[in-house]
Amino acid sequence: MKAIIHIGLKSGVLDPQGRTIARSLAHLGFDSVTKARQGKTIELDLDTEDVDIAKLDVEKMCKQLLANTVIEDYQIEIVEQD
Amino acid sequence: MKAIIHIGLKSGVLDPQGRTIARSLAHLGFDSVTKARQGKTIELDLDTEDVDIAKLDVEKMCKQLLANTVIEDYQIEIVEQD
Repeated sequence: MKAIIHIGLKSGVLDPQGRTIARSLAHLGFDSVTKARQGKTIELDLDTEDVDIAKLDVEKMCKQLLANTVIEDYQIEIVEQD
Repeated sequence: MKAIIHIGLKSGVLDPQGRTIARSLAHLGFDSVTKARQGKTIELDLDTEDVDIAKLDVEKMCKQLLANTVIEDYQIEIVEQD
């Protein structure tokens, strides 16, 4: 089973990386870009059969290690494989 | 219009961040994790009406700035808004 975790800054939190990307794109002539935000994705291969247990586990992983819940939001997506 | 760009390392490219995540999760007792890979997501707000032009533009942005196409793959997702 696979878990895909999308982690991004909460709205309202300053995103200097995003601003740098927007500014750099404008410098390159891409003036249609009005805003940019950067987040990260973590893909986990899980040796579990049970989707519910997997979800609970990944939720715990996010809280304990993967996300900084003070400034970041996360979404968990579980993908079953053959 | 919004563009969401998912950037990840090509398969076969060493991912030290992913390995560190997998090892740290194992240390915390999450022994169901067999592999971890980290990627990034860039979300762009675009001031364009035309989806096709937006796609072409974002493709160019990826090649010129956002992705390192030697070691990274990217996927572009265009989201139309009201």
